[in-house]
Amino acid sequence: MTEALPAHPPTFSPGCPEYVQRVHDSFREQAFMRTLGASVAEVAPGTVTLVMPYREDLTQQNGFLHAGVTAALADSAAGYAAYTVMAPDSNVLSIEFKHNLLSPAIGARFHARGQVLRAGKQIVVVQATVTAEQPDGREKSVALMQATMMQVRPA
Amino acid sequence: MTEALPAHPPTFSPGCPEYVQRVHDSFREQAFMRTLGASVAEVAPGTVTLVMPYREDLTQQNGFLHAGVTAALADSAAGYAAYTVMAPDSNVLSIEFKHNLLSPAIGARFHARGQVLRAGKQIVVVQATVTAEQPDGREKSVALMQATMMQVRPA
Amino acid sequence: MTEALPAHPPTFSPGCPEYVQRVHDSFREQAFMRTLGASVAEVAPGTVTLVMPYREDLTQQNGFLHAGVTAALADSAAGYAAYTVMAPDSNVLSIEFKHNLLSPAIGARFHARGQVLRAGKQIVVVQATVTAEQPDGREKSVALMQATMMQVRPA
Amino acid sequence: MTEALPAHPPTFSPGCPEYVQRVHDSFREQAFMRTLGASVAEVAPGTVTLVMPYREDLTQQNGFLHAGVTAALADSAAGYAAYTVMAPDSNVLSIEFKHNLLSPAIGARFHARGQVLRAGKQIVVVQATVTAEQPDGREKSVALMQATMMQVRPA
Repeated sequence: MTEALPAHPPTFSPGCPEYVQRVHDSFREQAFMRTLGASVAEVAPGTVTLVMPYREDLTQQNGFLHAGVTAALADSAAGYAAYTVMAPDSNVLSIEFKHNLLSPAIGARFHARGQVLRAGKQIVVVQATVTAEQPDGREKSVALMQATMMQVRPA
Repeated sequence: MTEALPAHPPTFSPGCPEYVQRVHDSFREQAFMRTLGASVAEVAPGTVTLVMPYREDLTQQNGFLHAGVTAALADSAAGYAAYTVMAPDSNVLSIEFKHNLLSPAIGARFHARGQVLRAGKQIVVVQATVTAEQPDGREKSVALMQATMMQVRPA
Repeated sequence: MTEALPAHPPTFSPGCPEYVQRVHDSFREQAFMRTLGASVAEVAPGTVTLVMPYREDLTQQNGFLHAGVTAALADSAAGYAAYTVMAPDSNVLSIEFKHNLLSPAIGARFHARGQVLRAGKQIVVVQATVTAEQPDGREKSVALMQATMMQVRPA
Repeated sequence: MTEALPAHPPTFSPGCPEYVQRVHDSFREQAFMRTLGASVAEVAPGTVTLVMPYREDLTQQNGFLHAGVTAALADSAAGYAAYTVMAPDSNVLSIEFKHNLLSPAIGARFHARGQVLRAGKQIVVVQATVTAEQPDGREKSVALMQATMMQVRPA
């Protein structure tokens, strides 16, 4: 599905036993993900996939998803992918991301998948892709992200 | 207001006499900008400013604007800034952007200002900042974007 | 070797039959690659790998390769990867790149591998990784790039 | 000179009284800056300017400076700009940067100027420009960087 991501990414251990629940709990508090109609499709150590149906009120002037919407999905997928490898008492913070638009973001549903590539003590580097479900069922890559996340520990 | 942008940016000529109207017309067709409650505050050759009030349904887990929201505002401000210098028969397309989160995006209202730095025949490079109105009236920079836009001409 | 790159990337057709020779010919004209001691290790449709031995005069203050060196290698690998899918009369131009430093760039030799992810008529999006040969022979990822290349055609 | 940078950037206090000397001392240990023939032209709180003459052995296939060279200069200027506001016992580390090529990097000499935009306890965000001296004495912007630096403290 996410052809831009490595098929054999580095293997990561969860940052705590409750890593799946932690992602769901935090995601539920992201009001903007509700506004977009996004939900969590998969959580595993080092990777999180979100899914979101197409909606006209999320588009730019040509009827494609606005780049801010694909960026929001990719950023949340990337951030929660990073969160799965973080310590139990930590929070995750987006420092920055870079987002390439590959193709018009048009399709019935969209998947955003984040994959951790490097997990340091403070800095976690993540790639994410956004794919669009085509009428024939295939997933087409529509956007690509390279993001830097931070593990914030209590002072 | 937008301290991250150059005070003496290069001067640009409008791409066509109707450049202001063109921005307003295209912006009205960005359904996602309506969804966010954003509007056009200023249009000048090489620069566009958008404004958006804070809303709770646009936030992440800590009550700050989601990074996808500041990215959406900055991308639209950057894209329309580029559009002001483009030829009458052209369309503007976001190729990519890079977005740094500087401070928690909290405040009564947010301004996103795009400023063209280099306008080539096809590629237009734009910086954008997002600022948040503080209780004392000051504008605080909360996010920074460096973006690459493309001028698409009819074949 | 380059675990950050997709194992099943999209398949690309060469832009012209002489695509391998074209990469070697252009690379030879990059004086800076000679200055770095880099050479072409592999050329295939959509991907190019460069190799460069460690040298002390390429380091920053801690004895690691300077980020500008890993960026130069990754940019050339990405640019030539894009070049393999471009038309015979075209030239390749770097529009922009984003470079994450993952680990200290230390090792006997470095490989930079570019992989095209999306080839449009004008814009080609490429990922690149830089890996360092470890004493045990393993390749460790030290840097990651997401780059935008342009196909420039004669006017 | 560096029109892409803010004319009224935020004001920063030096991170320690010896901030100028610290930049010079660390710069001298960057072997790659010597290899490029670069030197420090100016150090002030929150900003550092480097200068480098043109040399043919630093070029790509068209005789312009290789993008890795402008990226190296911009990264060092950005990193040392960040270093000026860091604590005495800290080291500076490049996390990532994004580099746009604006114009062919051709000219007698090049200036790279880094300007801190946001200095957090750990993360420092910096913009940098690279300009080329034109035959008429003007400085032309040839490249633009948005970079994320980290303040590394002893454990």
